[in-house]
Amino acid sequence: MRILLQFPEGLKQKALEHAKILEKEGNEVFISASPTFGACDLAIDEARSIKADKLVHFGHAEFHHVDFNVEYVPYSIDAPTGILADSLDYLKGYERIGIVTTIQHIHQLGELSDFYSRNGKKVVIGKPYGFAKRKGQILGCDIGSAATIDREVDAFIYFGGGIFHPLGAVIATTKPFLVVEPFANRIEFIDHLRERQRGRSRGKVLSSMDARRFGILVSTKNGQHNMALGKLIKKKIESSGLDAQILVANTFDFISIWNMMEFDAFVNTACPRIAVDDSDRVSASKPILSANELMDLLSMKAELSKVRN
Amino acid sequence: MRILLQFPEGLKQKALEHAKILEKEGNEVFISASPTFGACDLAIDEARSIKADKLVHFGHAEFHHVDFNVEYVPYSIDAPTGILADSLDYLKGYERIGIVTTIQHIHQLGELSDFYSRNGKKVVIGKPYGFAKRKGQILGCDIGSAATIDREVDAFIYFGGGIFHPLGAVIATTKPFLVVEPFANRIEFIDHLRERQRGRSRGKVLSSMDARRFGILVSTKNGQHNMALGKLIKKKIESSGLDAQILVANTFDFISIWNMMEFDAFVNTACPRIAVDDSDRVSASKPILSANELMDLLSMKAELSKVRN
Repeated sequence: MRILLQFPEGLKQKALEHAKILEKEGNEVFISASPTFGACDLAIDEARSIKADKLVHFGHAEFHHVDFNVEYVPYSIDAPTGILADSLDYLKGYERIGIVTTIQHIHQLGELSDFYSRNGKKVVIGKPYGFAKRKGQILGCDIGSAATIDREVDAFIYFGGGIFHPLGAVIATTKPFLVVEPFANRIEFIDHLRERQRGRSRGKVLSSMDARRFGILVSTKNGQHNMALGKLIKKKIESSGLDAQILVANTFDFISIWNMMEFDAFVNTACPRIAVDDSDRVSASKPILSANELMDLLSMKAELSKVRN
Repeated sequence: MRILLQFPEGLKQKALEHAKILEKEGNEVFISASPTFGACDLAIDEARSIKADKLVHFGHAEFHHVDFNVEYVPYSIDAPTGILADSLDYLKGYERIGIVTTIQHIHQLGELSDFYSRNGKKVVIGKPYGFAKRKGQILGCDIGSAATIDREVDAFIYFGGGIFHPLGAVIATTKPFLVVEPFANRIEFIDHLRERQRGRSRGKVLSSMDARRFGILVSTKNGQHNMALGKLIKKKIESSGLDAQILVANTFDFISIWNMMEFDAFVNTACPRIAVDDSDRVSASKPILSANELMDLLSMKAELSKVRN
């Protein structure tokens, strides 16, 4: 069988090892070298190009059904939990604790829950939500299991590595948000990022006030493709008397977007995190707006135009 | 008609202008935002994803036939020729001059040729060669119209912008090589790059002497896909008792390749310029070798192993 293997960035260091195992079983094996952001980002174009019989995608659960033979291989990582004891100091005064984590550590949620319960906390775990199929799981684009329990908890804990996942959750919640990183052995509240992100969002809208030509980003990735939204936004912008064109790519390259110098600002319809994490990667004066930020902008421009006339 | 427009990086600044014209003619228009390196790099995956009826590719002539409706729109640029007079000082003592340029200025070749003939030079223009369809034309990957006249000239002139195109030609020739840049208004001999490139190539081979695990880059781009060569290289490496896997991507992302930490070195089968221009972009100690450099490496390893045993 001809197989294309796909790994997220953090697991690409295991690619050769897995390829050799499958080769020994008699398969013809290839490895996708493209950046991989999730199961929303299956290497189907590549798999079709090399006429693969199957795409084996490591580290993410199925996001939605696609018209290709995809095998999803979970990749659980047993993180050390010694750090939990230290986290208790940070949680003094917070009785009801919401815990969220990523798919890699979701199998440890029971252990985490038991630990905090034993130490006098009332643990709340959010239901599976949207694209996140497991209780307490968050994705970069789906933090429903945090947002939906915001009113039931006094504080949140994110257990896992990096800031990418908890950043999405802290923005969508209002309670103190503690990040517990078992490998980096770091514990910190990240509530300041919530305020920073709100400030950035306001800044992006204000700096786009004079924009007249908008580029709308529509990705061809299986789980990020939203042409319907792209077309809706184009109509909305044009009905405000401004110019808009739809820009299509698989992974957006910010230098190539920068090269499209006619555009004054961009609107994202792909991975929602592009408008959060990459919003100033084209240029500080040509922000990438979310659809909501664009609507705010158009309202403000309309108000301003009324006042001026 | 639903149309996807594709522009090379230097022409992306004209994308909105062209999109608006086609839209006014009643078409539904989208713009590819991906990096574009040539007609070897048609945005066919994107065009298929959005169900476009046609891909309009600007600035490059057809490279080879593909199974999609592609319209190639030439993009000639009239470069000022005042700089030619200054170039004569550099060409004293060279009687026979070979002239090469890119597709953007190929229509000016007659004017260039006349100028140097009037000024006492014997002008030689190479025949169309390989993927370059016009006399005197060079591509990043095809410098035959320079290499094939190396023995008939005393010096070369490249007329055009940037170092990308003449670098390929200077490496493949032996005569003094003058770059005449009409927009930057710069004239210089670039023969030192020929020696530098040879040194780099030797350095890459030597620094790979201990490599045991090779990643072979195979691109899915229409004009860069060479799976047959990829498989051949894999067999060759494995028959030397070393490990090799084929890494597949459309545009190679050097950070993602770096993330594949098991590999000690990489071998390029895609655009030949990757092993020249991007050879140290993964890491200085993990070079991207050309197929020829790999063969040199394997020979040297075999020699060394004989000496040691």
